[in-house]
Amino acid sequence: MKTLKAYLSEKQKWVDRELRQRLPAANASPATIHQAMRYSIFAGGKRLRPILCLAAAEACGGGDEDALPLAAAVECLHTYSLIHDDLPCMDDDDFRRGNPTSHKKYGEGIAVLAGDALLTIAFEMVANAAPQPRYGTAVMVRELAETSGSRKLIAGQVLDLEGEGKGASLTLAQLKRIHMGKTASLLTTSIRYGGMSANATPKKLEALTVFGQSLGLAFQVIDDILDVTQTSEKLGKSAGKDEAADKATYPSLMGLEKSKLEAQRLTAKAMQALKLFGKRGQRLREIADYLLARDY
Amino acid sequence: MKTLKAYLSEKQKWVDRELRQRLPAANASPATIHQAMRYSIFAGGKRLRPILCLAAAEACGGGDEDALPLAAAVECLHTYSLIHDDLPCMDDDDFRRGNPTSHKKYGEGIAVLAGDALLTIAFEMVANAAPQPRYGTAVMVRELAETSGSRKLIAGQVLDLEGEGKGASLTLAQLKRIHMGKTASLLTTSIRYGGMSANATPKKLEALTVFGQSLGLAFQVIDDILDVTQTSEKLGKSAGKDEAADKATYPSLMGLEKSKLEAQRLTAKAMQALKLFGKRGQRLREIADYLLARDY
Repeated sequence: MKTLKAYLSEKQKWVDRELRQRLPAANASPATIHQAMRYSIFAGGKRLRPILCLAAAEACGGGDEDALPLAAAVECLHTYSLIHDDLPCMDDDDFRRGNPTSHKKYGEGIAVLAGDALLTIAFEMVANAAPQPRYGTAVMVRELAETSGSRKLIAGQVLDLEGEGKGASLTLAQLKRIHMGKTASLLTTSIRYGGMSANATPKKLEALTVFGQSLGLAFQVIDDILDVTQTSEKLGKSAGKDEAADKATYPSLMGLEKSKLEAQRLTAKAMQALKLFGKRGQRLREIADYLLARDY
Repeated sequence: MKTLKAYLSEKQKWVDRELRQRLPAANASPATIHQAMRYSIFAGGKRLRPILCLAAAEACGGGDEDALPLAAAVECLHTYSLIHDDLPCMDDDDFRRGNPTSHKKYGEGIAVLAGDALLTIAFEMVANAAPQPRYGTAVMVRELAETSGSRKLIAGQVLDLEGEGKGASLTLAQLKRIHMGKTASLLTTSIRYGGMSANATPKKLEALTVFGQSLGLAFQVIDDILDVTQTSEKLGKSAGKDEAADKATYPSLMGLEKSKLEAQRLTAKAMQALKLFGKRGQRLREIADYLLARDY
């Protein structure tokens, strides 16, 4: 069996290839928008969500071919949300993964439109994915629309915006809802999409859902921790932003040590959900380990 | 047969009802975003696109029930594009239909997110529409994604942004592409959706396409003319914006009189395409007449 590193690197190449092929060419007219879409998509993301999608397909006995269009769709959706989150009227971030954010590079108008275009093409990619006996196109499109809609992903962003400057007055339940919306729901959909592309049984899809939600929350708790403990250089984005904006975080609400324990508890829950998949769940298990073992 | 006025008023009520039912309640959490979505959707739009969808369904022998989810979807799509177009980094409009625009009322962050949420829910509505033998969910979702994507609707907005300050140096062909993208392509999809919901033959769908494109361009030429000839009060938005931004318009490129002739030529082409539908196309014919007969 390949090492995890080799596995991640190979899958990343497949995902990048799919994205290169499915996004309009950089010189397609109007070139500005297509360059802006590609600039943010190929800005060095680790393709965590698409790779989780492929690994979940594998866990359910499926292959890359049916999963790749869905994997590319979640990456476009994720990138759209980053572009809009970085805007001056939102988180106002100048750097992302060490590079200027879309609006710093192309101006705010094009950044808004590049986000819009990536959101739109994500749905096109889902519509182009092969429907499965248990999961038709309508089911797959609804999945993405709900995850990225005003009750989940966008809800997280709204609550985040409204929570700025409130710091410790936010409750843990509210913070959890922000994290579910901003991070865990799209991670969960990425993983569920893998299952759907492999025509997973409802029982397996449910286990993937528990895995995704627990992993997604753990991932966000760790991000909160890293924002406190790491430098901007190491993060590839501005560190200490949460504190500067007086945003509630896990460390600010429950302290650093308890936050670390919470990340571990959530990961254990995620691992428990994977038992159903036996050996085929090995890659998902390794990825969860890898995410928790980030240097915090 | 009902008068056109009674027809439009009745259909508008059905569309409003569908939108009220399908959008999350105004008090659904987080309330801000759902209020912002409803604020722009219920800001007094005439529901031109959804009504064209219903009338096209009628022209193909279909009924309201199958067309309404698609009609609501195009209205959400249209409203999203208005909210984002009005942003300070785009057209920077403070008023729309006589009311403060979304970002004036809710702030820029929420306005961006309200647009995002309406774009997203439009796809959910399409996924929830009944598939037809000739037009499955995948076909319907692709239709909306292409129309609102980076080669059409968003392309129009990009070219429009880039054309600002260039005025008369834009060619007529470039201006036409902006108008196709910004207006005609969504009008065309609205009309095609009506045909799809009625399982129209490919020949009829093609005739609806020609009708929609010609009508959409005519509509935009008239809007350009009205921007020159009308007061802000009558328009319900700031008049003379195009000239102030030194944007190319039909009147600025071909003069006022020739622009009026062009609007009439395009409408005649639209009417010609309707012949295929005989008496059933009567409402589409009346609506086209009504749009051309706006007081310019």
